Amino acid sequence: MKKRPLILITNDDGITAPGIRTLISVMNEIGDVVVVAPDSPQSGMGHAITLDSTIYCDAVTLDEGMQLEYRCSGTPADCVKMAISEILNKRPDLCVSGINHGSNSSINVIYSGTMSAAIEAGIEGIPAIGFSLLDYSWNANFDGLRSYIKKIALQVLEHGLPDGIVLNVNFPKLVNQDFNGIKISRQARANWVEEFDKRVNPQGKEYYWLTGKFVDLDHGEDTDVWALANKYVSVVPVQFDLTAHQYIKQLNSWDL
Amino acid sequence: MKKRPLILITNDDGITAPGIRTLISVMNEIGDVVVVAPDSPQSGMGHAITLDSTIYCDAVTLDEGMQLEYRCSGTPADCVKMAISEILNKRPDLCVSGINHGSNSSINVIYSGTMSAAIEAGIEGIPAIGFSLLDYSWNANFDGLRSYIKKIALQVLEHGLPDGIVLNVNFPKLVNQDFNGIKISRQARANWVEEFDKRVNPQGKEYYWLTGKFVDLDHGEDTDVWALANKYVSVVPVQFDLTAHQYIKQLNSWDL
Repeated sequence: MKKRPLILITNDDGITAPGIRTLISVMNEIGDVVVVAPDSPQSGMGHAITLDSTIYCDAVTLDEGMQLEYRCSGTPADCVKMAISEILNKRPDLCVSGINHGSNSSINVIYSGTMSAAIEAGIEGIPAIGFSLLDYSWNANFDGLRSYIKKIALQVLEHGLPDGIVLNVNFPKLVNQDFNGIKISRQARANWVEEFDKRVNPQGKEYYWLTGKFVDLDHGEDTDVWALANKYVSVVPVQFDLTAHQYIKQLNSWDL
Repeated sequence: MKKRPLILITNDDGITAPGIRTLISVMNEIGDVVVVAPDSPQSGMGHAITLDSTIYCDAVTLDEGMQLEYRCSGTPADCVKMAISEILNKRPDLCVSGINHGSNSSINVIYSGTMSAAIEAGIEGIPAIGFSLLDYSWNANFDGLRSYIKKIALQVLEHGLPDGIVLNVNFPKLVNQDFNGIKISRQARANWVEEFDKRVNPQGKEYYWLTGKFVDLDHGEDTDVWALANKYVSVVPVQFDLTAHQYIKQLNSWDL
């Protein structure tokens, strides 16, 4: 790529989160950066979009970097739509989302605002990557991720991605250790076993907090969960054609 | 199945929507029904879950049917989690979601609360179906759908569904005509081209409404969009393993 690429950045932890600030700083080394990100945390928003309320979007300056930034009242998917439709005057060459504070491996890809933003860009035909670190802390250390993020982004800019595919990149949480490298993986089959925390409010009415325990049902050594547990950076190619093509023939044999 | 099956029902238009009331009435003919559905409309919620606020859930009686009903302040995915974890004392044999007021064909499956509820049940290992009618009207006529819904539900109860697969059923909007039958389909490749409606609030600040135009990029005659345009009921097998398995080999050839 001769010219500096145009890179759109968003996330789901909100525009001031340390994860996105790191991602902006890395992308400023590669291209011209425009940030359109939620004004507040949107974790667990999945692919929600704002249909029944209004969306605000304001230009802001949050640090001394070269990027242009907009903070938006919508969801991560809204931010991508807003960027492409209203803010940018040309199509971005790349969309990166994150760095999420917390894992988006395995089934978490389904609940993830970070990945939904990347998928939204993919739907619009833009090469896209979601980045996540297995550390929920606001003060997580993102330094060791920079060279990997830069390498993966440059490879996507060089190779492109086929229509319908985006990348889901997860980093293990390591302290004073190096990653073992990058592993191309598949999404592990897992689920959350919910443990609702039932409480009583001051008016005497019962309410719940959603909590849960992650259960890996998959014993493969080619999964993202395996890669992360073995100190690899996991890269899963993710598609948004949800059709279970291999099951169409079987369904045709039913009495429908 | 000898005993009456236990059927969990939810939706994203809210527990009082005519679509879910029709679905309840059909399912009462087949099994023992428990409804756990949002207390208010949740369209476009995708697979959002409630992580940072509380969830309320109350038993209610809304008509004279045999079903048990609970109205819940959470998202459609929350409702399924709440039902399985807190309300039901055994696992349901089937989860049905809908009938949605509006299409969930093609890329809409990604944004759909209706389908996310079905997928959530699928993640928990429960056979699940989402039903949608291509009519956004609150007063849509669901009568012609009853026999199809019953047939599809009975076939799922008889055959089961493989781990990782749920069904996305969409009905065309027909007036005084019969459907041409059921077509097993794949998700059409399409997207929405956003047209944000920019307005100014009474305080002089700009805001937006998200609107858009559906653009079918797919010319296949095996898609859900084609089936619906040709007066067929579309049934798409949907998977929540988002891995683009066919692209893993290619990614391994990159310089990562």
